Amino acid sequence: MDVNVLLFDDFETLDAFGPVEILGCVADYHLRYVSKSGGLISSKQGFKIETEKIASEDLSGILLIPGGSGTRTLVNDELFIEFLRKLVLNSQYCLTVCTGSALLAKTGLLDTKKATSNKKAFAWVKSVNNDVKWVEKARWVVDGNYYTSSGVSAGMDMVLGFIRDQLGVKTAMQISDYIEYIWNDDPDFDPFANTLH
Amino acid sequence: MDVNVLLFDDFETLDAFGPVEILGCVADYHLRYVSKSGGLISSKQGFKIETEKIASEDLSGILLIPGGSGTRTLVNDELFIEFLRKLVLNSQYCLTVCTGSALLAKTGLLDTKKATSNKKAFAWVKSVNNDVKWVEKARWVVDGNYYTSSGVSAGMDMVLGFIRDQLGVKTAMQISDYIEYIWNDDPDFDPFANTLH
Repeated sequence: MDVNVLLFDDFETLDAFGPVEILGCVADYHLRYVSKSGGLISSKQGFKIETEKIASEDLSGILLIPGGSGTRTLVNDELFIEFLRKLVLNSQYCLTVCTGSALLAKTGLLDTKKATSNKKAFAWVKSVNNDVKWVEKARWVVDGNYYTSSGVSAGMDMVLGFIRDQLGVKTAMQISDYIEYIWNDDPDFDPFANTLH
Repeated sequence: MDVNVLLFDDFETLDAFGPVEILGCVADYHLRYVSKSGGLISSKQGFKIETEKIASEDLSGILLIPGGSGTRTLVNDELFIEFLRKLVLNSQYCLTVCTGSALLAKTGLLDTKKATSNKKAFAWVKSVNNDVKWVEKARWVVDGNYYTSSGVSAGMDMVLGFIRDQLGVKTAMQISDYIEYIWNDDPDFDPFANTLH
């Protein structure tokens, strides 16, 4: 199964590369780094990474959407949101980290579904689409094939939870052991819920 | 102060980008992505990132050395190790993650000093240089200006510890809150010591 990591300028580094480290441990998952226009994409932390230009209809499998300051302008980019909507519809699963859920919410595909987001940007994310059932206290939230996580580091806990759902707890534990990651395996344990903005 | 992230082919993604996320939160730190030859460098997880070609004498500040399967060949590359030795000597602090400590050990600069490394590669790392006082049970180890961490995810705990040492615990806590990271702030708490290979 392909894992398509969707990148855009000013994505937040760990939102993408924490999950990449973990998803890359699954032999059956094939990582691809993709963007709407292809070429070099700049992270918020200043490095440039090569991406593959893709059309929405060319993708399937798992879609990973990071957050970051780049989402603030992209939610207002109608062409990007329409591209993203098709991309999500063609994917089997869609996983968002941090304010990546604002992009997903803007497509309308999260309407009436439960989701969460970065605690420091919660008010803004809610303002993007109030028809989503936003959950304030959650490390991550699953609703059908949509997985949404809290800020930055929460994405790692979420993708281990996704792997547990897909491949069993033993595989998830083997991966967290392998990368020496102290996994918060409870989606309801959210020590940052009291920092909501 | 510059933070020089030293990249080489087949570096482990989270070894570099976990610390990058955290160090990038310090306004006074300036991130640079560097390599011996410059150009595009491939991570173990298959993406390519642009790097700046640097000479050892051009650098100062903080040096971050990730690990990854690329270290297995680099420890036997005499020109690289000599380049690295000069680079470390010109840096104020040297931080290694995972098997990055094998590269540092090979330079001889860790001789008689305490250090740690990835639990799954410990026997190999020790075999690179037995004159280092290798610590088996440690999330991270500080000896003078050298910080060495256990595998992959441990690098994030270590750099928060480094920031605590440099800028105080309040700054370290603000950063871990900001990126919603559940920090293991005790260098002696190592839940993976029993998986030593």
